[in-house]
Amino acid sequence: MTPISRYPVPELADLPSDIREKILAVQEKAGFVPNVFLTLAHRPDEFRAFFAYHDALMEKDGGITKAEREMIVVTTSGANQCQYCVVAHGAILRIRAKNPRIADQVAVNHRKAEITPRQRAMLDFAMKIATESHLVEDADFAALKAQGFADEDIWDIGAIAAFFALSNRMANMIAMRPNDEFYLMGRLPKS
Amino acid sequence: MTPISRYPVPELADLPSDIREKILAVQEKAGFVPNVFLTLAHRPDEFRAFFAYHDALMEKDGGITKAEREMIVVTTSGANQCQYCVVAHGAILRIRAKNPRIADQVAVNHRKAEITPRQRAMLDFAMKIATESHLVEDADFAALKAQGFADEDIWDIGAIAAFFALSNRMANMIAMRPNDEFYLMGRLPKS
Amino acid sequence: MTPISRYPVPELADLPSDIREKILAVQEKAGFVPNVFLTLAHRPDEFRAFFAYHDALMEKDGGITKAEREMIVVTTSGANQCQYCVVAHGAILRIRAKNPRIADQVAVNHRKAEITPRQRAMLDFAMKIATESHLVEDADFAALKAQGFADEDIWDIGAIAAFFALSNRMANMIAMRPNDEFYLMGRLPKS
Amino acid sequence: MTPISRYPVPELADLPSDIREKILAVQEKAGFVPNVFLTLAHRPDEFRAFFAYHDALMEKDGGITKAEREMIVVTTSGANQCQYCVVAHGAILRIRAKNPRIADQVAVNHRKAEITPRQRAMLDFAMKIATESHLVEDADFAALKAQGFADEDIWDIGAIAAFFALSNRMANMIAMRPNDEFYLMGRLPKS
Amino acid sequence: MTPISRYPVPELADLPSDIREKILAVQEKAGFVPNVFLTLAHRPDEFRAFFAYHDALMEKDGGITKAEREMIVVTTSGANQCQYCVVAHGAILRIRAKNPRIADQVAVNHRKAEITPRQRAMLDFAMKIATESHLVEDADFAALKAQGFADEDIWDIGAIAAFFALSNRMANMIAMRPNDEFYLMGRLPKS
Amino acid sequence: MTPISRYPVPELADLPSDIREKILAVQEKAGFVPNVFLTLAHRPDEFRAFFAYHDALMEKDGGITKAEREMIVVTTSGANQCQYCVVAHGAILRIRAKNPRIADQVAVNHRKAEITPRQRAMLDFAMKIATESHLVEDADFAALKAQGFADEDIWDIGAIAAFFALSNRMANMIAMRPNDEFYLMGRLPKS
Repeated sequence: MTPISRYPVPELADLPSDIREKILAVQEKAGFVPNVFLTLAHRPDEFRAFFAYHDALMEKDGGITKAEREMIVVTTSGANQCQYCVVAHGAILRIRAKNPRIADQVAVNHRKAEITPRQRAMLDFAMKIATESHLVEDADFAALKAQGFADEDIWDIGAIAAFFALSNRMANMIAMRPNDEFYLMGRLPKS
Repeated sequence: MTPISRYPVPELADLPSDIREKILAVQEKAGFVPNVFLTLAHRPDEFRAFFAYHDALMEKDGGITKAEREMIVVTTSGANQCQYCVVAHGAILRIRAKNPRIADQVAVNHRKAEITPRQRAMLDFAMKIATESHLVEDADFAALKAQGFADEDIWDIGAIAAFFALSNRMANMIAMRPNDEFYLMGRLPKS
Repeated sequence: MTPISRYPVPELADLPSDIREKILAVQEKAGFVPNVFLTLAHRPDEFRAFFAYHDALMEKDGGITKAEREMIVVTTSGANQCQYCVVAHGAILRIRAKNPRIADQVAVNHRKAEITPRQRAMLDFAMKIATESHLVEDADFAALKAQGFADEDIWDIGAIAAFFALSNRMANMIAMRPNDEFYLMGRLPKS
Repeated sequence: MTPISRYPVPELADLPSDIREKILAVQEKAGFVPNVFLTLAHRPDEFRAFFAYHDALMEKDGGITKAEREMIVVTTSGANQCQYCVVAHGAILRIRAKNPRIADQVAVNHRKAEITPRQRAMLDFAMKIATESHLVEDADFAALKAQGFADEDIWDIGAIAAFFALSNRMANMIAMRPNDEFYLMGRLPKS
Repeated sequence: MTPISRYPVPELADLPSDIREKILAVQEKAGFVPNVFLTLAHRPDEFRAFFAYHDALMEKDGGITKAEREMIVVTTSGANQCQYCVVAHGAILRIRAKNPRIADQVAVNHRKAEITPRQRAMLDFAMKIATESHLVEDADFAALKAQGFADEDIWDIGAIAAFFALSNRMANMIAMRPNDEFYLMGRLPKS
Repeated sequence: MTPISRYPVPELADLPSDIREKILAVQEKAGFVPNVFLTLAHRPDEFRAFFAYHDALMEKDGGITKAEREMIVVTTSGANQCQYCVVAHGAILRIRAKNPRIADQVAVNHRKAEITPRQRAMLDFAMKIATESHLVEDADFAALKAQGFADEDIWDIGAIAAFFALSNRMANMIAMRPNDEFYLMGRLPKS
């Protein structure tokens, strides 16, 4: 079977305790360890910075819901052709949005997804940051404010797209493989 | 709810009998009517030509299996950002390949999918036809023959990519919506 | 001399009778057999579907004249760098439009061609379908309606561009060579 | 009728005598005045430099024939979507190559044109200069030398592509219209 | 004068002490506070993660020198059209490489810079990560190993390109202005 | 050390006297001979046309200042990744604009440079000519006129961008090396 990374994957027992504990906590909650934790643990300092950054952007609500944050991730990761991020964050998006179709839709073409005009504006801006950030102008901020986004919301949108520009490139470089569990998550109705 | 097409969708009862019968046969087999049949029935003559072409390319085996034909469809439809084709043919691919992960993988980046080197060469050529067919040269044929493909196989690969260049554009133009049923098909183990 | 296709070209005598008759009818009318008929006859079922589709889109008038339909073909085939389609349909366009310059103009850059604003809008939409159909939105339909196009006209424009997305890719794949006759057709004043 | 330039076109009588004489000489030889002479005469100093440069590159033979020089012009002008240069130099190419098909072929896709492998290498390099000159490397020179081109031939190829990068942009900016005469030139056999 | 960010810039006195101390330390060393510190301090948690990540990648030697790390930053930031990163890291690169020309060269076109073949391979890979990471394959790793890079060096190269994919997008989004000091740094010989 | 051109560089003594005198005059004024003079002197006729064209466009004032003309050169040469032109004309721009930062800014991203809205419109048009001149339309002229540009100013802007499309390609082809002197010019305050 394809390895989960082009690089060696450390044993849990060999990891610094803070990283091991973070991984065990994720495993406790999700029932398995997403490969991004194991593969990036190859470099503990970078691991710590990566997840600190990730959590600062993704684990909060506010003007943008957690589901919408995942929507940004899946949309821009589709544009960057990052298999790990589309599959793994697609699962989280389905769960957070309680919508089994939305991830497949935005991964292919967010312009055709079942989203609100406000979300459409959000994703248009995220895609501009992801693919041509040098063209961002005041008019882009004005378009988002017309949809009710505050300045801090706009920073969130852009920063998430920027963080996953990093994340997608790391996953593509090391050929990070998505866990099999992700493919089905959030697709079945809760019984 | 979003309509399934920007154009009027005919009632089954109003359709010419050959088209109605084809649609009923599909419904019998699949348990529902995929929206491509209903939306394209808006133009009966084009409908007939479309499905005659489709079936000539997709409903046969030979050097390329039916699962591999669907793999070509999902890969190139991902590149063309066609939501309907990725979702609907993704379902068929999962079923034909008996692999619940393969469609999501090739839709995002076929270079990272769990496929054989022969399938990789097949998809590379399909993508060249889909996105830059003016660059096709003898060397492309040589690369496929080195993987054991016959000339007629190569025609199949290219013709499928070419046919879905048409199909993707029609679906994008009329904003064809994938049936909800497709999203889950082929993802659960047969009980 | 370069062959007219990378694939074997069948003898007329060996073809199914319906295909042979269609080819003889074209020869009767045009004075020669355009290579697209001979080269695609390599696959009779695909041949039948191809020309049924082609004729359903091209052999009618309505909101869009036959000359305008050819204009769409030449413009989008230029973008796809399809030599056969630019040369062969360029000839038909010159004849149908009774204009010896128009084909060369739109093949290079339709924005500089001697066309009406209505035709400009038509070709802009055709080019969007040909090259970035995933971006089509309601605003594109509104722009065409503002020029007087009906919904069915818009389907025609988009479907022709979509059909030649297929056709161009087939011609590029098999290296279809334009007949020498096409180059001069429609360039001389009728005496 | 569309004007031949977005800018005022001077009267022959108002032009400096050296420019007027050059134009009259061209008219004498060709039977008409190509619009590039009239439209660029709007700026006499630039006119003089433009044609001095043009003649230094195009009016000589050597490792590259005059017909081949025109082939470079038509190929790269096609890529730059310059209507004037494709139509006008297409005419000259047909005449110099004594081939009524070659111009239409290279304007669309030089890879499918009836040319020699040596000419193919020449046009590949010209296209690299035209569209991505920042990628030129020693390997490009080696590929041309392998086809028998001398260093000075390579300069000629690249300089012609570079000069028409300028010329195409000027023609596109001022919307230079090709003379009607060009469309038919070189298409009929000499009687 | 243009502000240094589209977002409010906190006063040093209002910042958490760890951030204020980091900033004061930089000021002590550099003689001024680079705007990236002030502008990103708008979000303390993201600031901490950003600089932890940055320092983990940039403040070490090994198979890749500190100067080479900056070379990666300037090259990829040029491709991303990030003014802050090209100007600020251009200064650091000049100082670390003790070469007043290298930054301007790689920012424009690293293929023409005064670098070694090994550095050329390093920058080619960094550019692939920056602009088309979905195409990375085993062959890219082989090319770098042929130049003597170890697996961990390759991670460094790719991770730096990935981190600045994030950094460039943040700077472009908030319109981060480079400090005037950077423009001249490293350009004059040490006296 | 890297040579200044892929082609032989003539000795001053071997050059035609008009070219030698022009070069000596430049040396007298600048204190050194910019490599563009030495490298292009390899072809005297092209040299004469090149500099006649250059001087006709760059050595005049009018609606566009000499500094603004250099701004066009540096901006479009950045887009074309021409190292010689960015470095050499960057120096001239700094001197003519009496601004040590402006060249580095526009070379990377003119949208973020410290320029006026009028200069922004000028550079937007120059970039359109440089990279997609086939899309130029009347609306582009209207936008410039709204900023107060006269028709002749617009010709200047476009012609400068067109001329450097040629110049950048020549420099890229022959690998023209910028003189070391350029890197520091215009960066230090006049004492």
